[in-house]
Amino acid sequence: MSESLDLGYARVDLGREARQGLPEVVYGPGKQVDEITGIVTTLLGRNTGPVLVTRVEPGVAADVLAAVPGGRHDPDARLLTWREAAPAGHTVAVVTAGTSDGPVAAEAAAVATALGLRTTVVRDVGVAGLHRVLAAVPDLRAADSVIVIAGMEGALASVVGGLVETPVIAVPTSTGYGAALEGVTALLAMLTSCAAGITVVNIDSGFGAALAAFRLTRRPG
Amino acid sequence: MSESLDLGYARVDLGREARQGLPEVVYGPGKQVDEITGIVTTLLGRNTGPVLVTRVEPGVAADVLAAVPGGRHDPDARLLTWREAAPAGHTVAVVTAGTSDGPVAAEAAAVATALGLRTTVVRDVGVAGLHRVLAAVPDLRAADSVIVIAGMEGALASVVGGLVETPVIAVPTSTGYGAALEGVTALLAMLTSCAAGITVVNIDSGFGAALAAFRLTRRPG
Amino acid sequence: MSESLDLGYARVDLGREARQGLPEVVYGPGKQVDEITGIVTTLLGRNTGPVLVTRVEPGVAADVLAAVPGGRHDPDARLLTWREAAPAGHTVAVVTAGTSDGPVAAEAAAVATALGLRTTVVRDVGVAGLHRVLAAVPDLRAADSVIVIAGMEGALASVVGGLVETPVIAVPTSTGYGAALEGVTALLAMLTSCAAGITVVNIDSGFGAALAAFRLTRRPG
Amino acid sequence: MSESLDLGYARVDLGREARQGLPEVVYGPGKQVDEITGIVTTLLGRNTGPVLVTRVEPGVAADVLAAVPGGRHDPDARLLTWREAAPAGHTVAVVTAGTSDGPVAAEAAAVATALGLRTTVVRDVGVAGLHRVLAAVPDLRAADSVIVIAGMEGALASVVGGLVETPVIAVPTSTGYGAALEGVTALLAMLTSCAAGITVVNIDSGFGAALAAFRLTRRPG
Amino acid sequence: MSESLDLGYARVDLGREARQGLPEVVYGPGKQVDEITGIVTTLLGRNTGPVLVTRVEPGVAADVLAAVPGGRHDPDARLLTWREAAPAGHTVAVVTAGTSDGPVAAEAAAVATALGLRTTVVRDVGVAGLHRVLAAVPDLRAADSVIVIAGMEGALASVVGGLVETPVIAVPTSTGYGAALEGVTALLAMLTSCAAGITVVNIDSGFGAALAAFRLTRRPG
Amino acid sequence: MSESLDLGYARVDLGREARQGLPEVVYGPGKQVDEITGIVTTLLGRNTGPVLVTRVEPGVAADVLAAVPGGRHDPDARLLTWREAAPAGHTVAVVTAGTSDGPVAAEAAAVATALGLRTTVVRDVGVAGLHRVLAAVPDLRAADSVIVIAGMEGALASVVGGLVETPVIAVPTSTGYGAALEGVTALLAMLTSCAAGITVVNIDSGFGAALAAFRLTRRPG
Amino acid sequence: MSESLDLGYARVDLGREARQGLPEVVYGPGKQVDEITGIVTTLLGRNTGPVLVTRVEPGVAADVLAAVPGGRHDPDARLLTWREAAPAGHTVAVVTAGTSDGPVAAEAAAVATALGLRTTVVRDVGVAGLHRVLAAVPDLRAADSVIVIAGMEGALASVVGGLVETPVIAVPTSTGYGAALEGVTALLAMLTSCAAGITVVNIDSGFGAALAAFRLTRRPG
Amino acid sequence: MSESLDLGYARVDLGREARQGLPEVVYGPGKQVDEITGIVTTLLGRNTGPVLVTRVEPGVAADVLAAVPGGRHDPDARLLTWREAAPAGHTVAVVTAGTSDGPVAAEAAAVATALGLRTTVVRDVGVAGLHRVLAAVPDLRAADSVIVIAGMEGALASVVGGLVETPVIAVPTSTGYGAALEGVTALLAMLTSCAAGITVVNIDSGFGAALAAFRLTRRPG
Repeated sequence: MSESLDLGYARVDLGREARQGLPEVVYGPGKQVDEITGIVTTLLGRNTGPVLVTRVEPGVAADVLAAVPGGRHDPDARLLTWREAAPAGHTVAVVTAGTSDGPVAAEAAAVATALGLRTTVVRDVGVAGLHRVLAAVPDLRAADSVIVIAGMEGALASVVGGLVETPVIAVPTSTGYGAALEGVTALLAMLTSCAAGITVVNIDSGFGAALAAFRLTRRPG
Repeated sequence: MSESLDLGYARVDLGREARQGLPEVVYGPGKQVDEITGIVTTLLGRNTGPVLVTRVEPGVAADVLAAVPGGRHDPDARLLTWREAAPAGHTVAVVTAGTSDGPVAAEAAAVATALGLRTTVVRDVGVAGLHRVLAAVPDLRAADSVIVIAGMEGALASVVGGLVETPVIAVPTSTGYGAALEGVTALLAMLTSCAAGITVVNIDSGFGAALAAFRLTRRPG
Repeated sequence: MSESLDLGYARVDLGREARQGLPEVVYGPGKQVDEITGIVTTLLGRNTGPVLVTRVEPGVAADVLAAVPGGRHDPDARLLTWREAAPAGHTVAVVTAGTSDGPVAAEAAAVATALGLRTTVVRDVGVAGLHRVLAAVPDLRAADSVIVIAGMEGALASVVGGLVETPVIAVPTSTGYGAALEGVTALLAMLTSCAAGITVVNIDSGFGAALAAFRLTRRPG
Repeated sequence: MSESLDLGYARVDLGREARQGLPEVVYGPGKQVDEITGIVTTLLGRNTGPVLVTRVEPGVAADVLAAVPGGRHDPDARLLTWREAAPAGHTVAVVTAGTSDGPVAAEAAAVATALGLRTTVVRDVGVAGLHRVLAAVPDLRAADSVIVIAGMEGALASVVGGLVETPVIAVPTSTGYGAALEGVTALLAMLTSCAAGITVVNIDSGFGAALAAFRLTRRPG
Repeated sequence: MSESLDLGYARVDLGREARQGLPEVVYGPGKQVDEITGIVTTLLGRNTGPVLVTRVEPGVAADVLAAVPGGRHDPDARLLTWREAAPAGHTVAVVTAGTSDGPVAAEAAAVATALGLRTTVVRDVGVAGLHRVLAAVPDLRAADSVIVIAGMEGALASVVGGLVETPVIAVPTSTGYGAALEGVTALLAMLTSCAAGITVVNIDSGFGAALAAFRLTRRPG
Repeated sequence: MSESLDLGYARVDLGREARQGLPEVVYGPGKQVDEITGIVTTLLGRNTGPVLVTRVEPGVAADVLAAVPGGRHDPDARLLTWREAAPAGHTVAVVTAGTSDGPVAAEAAAVATALGLRTTVVRDVGVAGLHRVLAAVPDLRAADSVIVIAGMEGALASVVGGLVETPVIAVPTSTGYGAALEGVTALLAMLTSCAAGITVVNIDSGFGAALAAFRLTRRPG
Repeated sequence: MSESLDLGYARVDLGREARQGLPEVVYGPGKQVDEITGIVTTLLGRNTGPVLVTRVEPGVAADVLAAVPGGRHDPDARLLTWREAAPAGHTVAVVTAGTSDGPVAAEAAAVATALGLRTTVVRDVGVAGLHRVLAAVPDLRAADSVIVIAGMEGALASVVGGLVETPVIAVPTSTGYGAALEGVTALLAMLTSCAAGITVVNIDSGFGAALAAFRLTRRPG
Repeated sequence: MSESLDLGYARVDLGREARQGLPEVVYGPGKQVDEITGIVTTLLGRNTGPVLVTRVEPGVAADVLAAVPGGRHDPDARLLTWREAAPAGHTVAVVTAGTSDGPVAAEAAAVATALGLRTTVVRDVGVAGLHRVLAAVPDLRAADSVIVIAGMEGALASVVGGLVETPVIAVPTSTGYGAALEGVTALLAMLTSCAAGITVVNIDSGFGAALAAFRLTRRPG
């Protein structure tokens, strides 16, 4: 059986759903409306699960939605979805350090929801006012996993990592200026966290964190 | 109840076992034999789970074992353990790109085993000879999670990430020279992997990967 | 014989064709239309081989073509050519990891074609769906050389490098965000590839890769 | 009046005590025993305040002490002192994240003490076990200033900075490995702390932090 | 007592005034007019001290001022303030190396003034014309603390640090080009100053320096 | 047919000779004498071409040679070889900028020779004395390919790249100090060479350059 | 005598002419038209030598010229000058590697000329066509000093440095892309040049090079 | 006439004396005693000017001196010299910021002296005690050129650059720790100095500075 389809402008990985329980996710930037439309139509026709387009601009989103009915656009998350999964058993808490981390959190939460995770968002609990994150501990401990999103020095990841025992996925953001180095400082800080067993994804990658959380729900096969 | 004990040279976090299902793990470098002995004795007396000392030199290991009976030394993993957990349900596959990644894999596997994970190691399946990792796919797919350990360009993480659907924890190693930048290149490469949902820990941190795998076994509470 | 001609705004290297079998290639950015026109006219008049202008903007391209007849504009490759070479014996396969690498591939392929190489392009075979590159192996093995173009972690270069025995020229691209560091991560990864004997050119330099492939066709003299 | 004395191997800044309330402090590395002896003797003779030599090796310390009576050696702090100041009104709390930060804390505390600050040390209260630093809050709030010493991701500085209102001087340490980048990660993290008004000194510079605390005690004049 | 208030788009730290003597300061970028308005209104209602919004664009500033009466806009400092503190005892001198450092100095001075510090500004006394800073020494020595603002090589911090004995807070700026690396060079230079006891804040952070100066006025409690 | 053999400590890629015309090359560092011996013996028995061990220390080399007869040790190149290939048609010129580049050149030349390339070495022709490289031009132009080895600023690669028309493989070396950044400067310089079509391998990788030259001799199949 | 004048927005260093034989040079960016006008008027009135404003935008230049008569605008050099010095004895050759280095060369040449140096410009003699720089050797050797301007790998500085015996001032430019790192690669390469005694100024600083050449004409006093 | 001599282990540039007024200088590290001896003997026989070997270890120096009579060893400068030039007209002042910069200053001064420059050394006048450098101004202004040697933040170069009008050659040193980044911070700081017309050489390159000063004495020819 052929596992990929060459559309000329893209070679769609049709076998990914069988291999990984999820059709290929489309990365929006640099693709034309008709290219996105073509890939989405292919995935809807040849796969059966949720179809997502990430980081899509509002104008592109409207055009694609018009061309491929049944979709939904979340502008905060810059996400297009079709055939979202029904909520299943795994709960993920998305927690942010500051209001500037909002767009990354929106992407993480919307992608996780579209893949069937029960998602709660706890915003703006940076460690400069520690009582805020302490107040959120019951919510964080009630989740199957926690996505921690923080820019600047990224210290929230270490604090949360020490408070919960379930998987912690840290997302550094490009929030901040100067020595924040567009997210590199938060990235390095999270990688060297004194809280053991934290894992890290790329800067600003709410998508990557949601996918990592989705993997937590997969079983060997 | 007091959750920490101040030994003067260290403040032992006695509450970590209650919070995170695992006593504090002792980081060996920079500690004297009597300091390690004191901390281990405290943890054995005040906690009930496995007690581990990482990155311990052979001479130090012998002296500590002599002072605190019942322990075990794994020289490849540079690990001391007491009260290892019985094997439980979660299986983790540890896979390496090259023979030079061996010490990091040894640490990951030994720590995971000591914490009760069923661990298998697949060595030396770097992508320059792709058939090697393809031959290992059934083993990797049979595991609940996979730890991928690679230095140089770290490409094995992307390849494995595209072949399994369960959690993948990538460990960059300092293997290589020149542009490998002591593991920074592998680290950056793993963070930007085209395989979605991979997570990354610090360079050479077999320990961190094992702890991340351990978190996969914890349930909210 | 004078080997260079000073046009005031540029000193044209007229001897390059004799030394290297190819007239000087004009780098477009920062040059005025009349400057490009002057250099191209000089090269057409004083040399006999193909004349190329790279990275040229559409408006500039139109003006130059109007001023110097007989040229051709490839907008995807941002390339202007006059007197393209006839196809000769060497075949080069240009292979990309993702759709975002398209512009770099277009430049590599168009330059190689203009210099007389038989060029085939294999798109979008990133290692997250390994079957795609495996399906392309016969095509890659049939070529005299392979140009591998990839951003993010650049792992495709290592995989291809292990599958073919002919020269592999790797081009890192600035595709990706965050830890991709505008192509530096792919660059470092390709330089530290575990597949022996791969060579690397500058980030996004489809031109550089095509020229390196062209050198493969030259004989001592 | 001449404000400096040229000893040939060093030009001693005799006026520093008048300008800044403290004789020049001698940096030990790279200086011979007789050079240190000469400078210390000069400062003892021409100034009236405390005389300090930092980062001095044990063997050198013994030789210098033998040559210049009345001094004291603190091997943990790698410090030699003569004419230590009597304790005065300002209290400084020195707090560390982990046991590996001990030598830097020892230097900070010993220098501060020698300059007349009342110094308390709170060790090993890293944020992975947050209750430890919370338990120390009363001590930290009781001090006129706080020196926070942490390596790895340096998150303790942000947490302390949000808990106290007095000056916080953060010292990144080279503790950690891999992405800790020999202290650069902690340095960058502390500089981008979400806790407003924290200040930072050089990596491992317990001395610099103590001098900064000393400046807090100086009045205009 | 609840110490924070969740406005949905932000979780306002109401307890910061009690903990640190100053209500939370609002960081303007990325926030909507109604979000800033909401946070400011909350702080004015639930706290009693000065309320500040930093780095606010002129248009946003006008809209917020219209919605929340009683405020003041300093366009040079990009600052909005309500309920500025009355001038109290601490004097701070803000000194700059060049005219390009002006905006950062304006922010430092305006924030310090709003918090009740008596502030004087000494501009454009870079070390290439040393007599300028020497002429300013009496003013600098008369202040309780000095904020030194400099870009490029940041040498002014070292020179001032050697001339005054009170606290020196150095602010690197992104002034300069090429090897100035957008302020990183000045940052590194200030951290390695040969003048002992200087402390440093983030690049371009006039705000951070002013807050650090404000901490100098706080007493233990 | 099984293409790899698991020796426990290594998984030997037996199929590499069929895929790439050359048995797997053994990287010496980090391997025990008996491990090297085991791998070499396997390759000699299961493959038919040249067997090489790179970067081997003198003591290890002697022990391995004693255990596996028929080998040869080149101490300058730190290379062990068995069954060297007979010289064939391709000639490669290895050219160095300075005497400090000698060990890298020795490795490149010895590996190339062992693989059947006719190799000539031109030493110490750095561009500070340009007549030296100009005098070597006939030799360089007579070769099928040129390996240029240079540290410091690596300018020799650009100069040679402009003088010959055949493939140029540039090897940056870690020669130099300070701003040479252990070879990173030469690496970056070679990647941005104004001489078109130069390719680059990792710092100090004489081995990588020789393998790249070997690939030049392979034909599609 | 007061050596500086505080205009409020700037503190003009009136003594620089006496100290260094040249009035303060005004850096244009970030200054308003009336600020530049004020400073220039002050310098014209209080000093007697040439007055220069660098990096000035065309619109600003026109306004300033209208307000301060007697000036001249060189748009290629982005330079405003009043009272240019008469040509004196020192000749400087400005040599560039490529056409993209033109603006930096224009600044260097115009500033040098305004300060009384006899300036010749040799353009576009990059080392990929070595005969171009070799043809220019007589001109370079006839000058009292040489300013070498090159981006990308900056190799021209090494080649020129080996051909002339007089002072060589190297200016790296931000020409190039990818691994050129906006001029950092050329900067590092020039600093590690194998041609002894070359000196280097900041990236794109034609101004700095011209001032360095001007210093060559000054005698002790 | 042949301009270079191939000794096998080195190709001696015999023409450098004719081109640049100085025989090739031998860089000691990595060369055997007999290699240094051979090169020195060649230069003494075929050239007529001073012969220098830099960065030579004491043991090597003794052996070379024994083999080639008439030489002199300066252990502080790590320099071997034969046929030192007689003092001529140009005076150079070598000024250092701290005692740790001594070895670099020794190299600069010894090389300059050997080449016939009249050299004075002013030590330990770092800007933290500004009166020290101010006291040295008459000496600095009396010299034809000044070499400024400083590590850490390298501020002395800016201060001296503003005080003298003759050429200033700045040498960053690797003195310092942490954020000093082994001299990179001083290097960047010197390149971005606010004192116009300063030039910079490589980190710790007292040799490079002396050669740059020597070039100041050369006239066109």
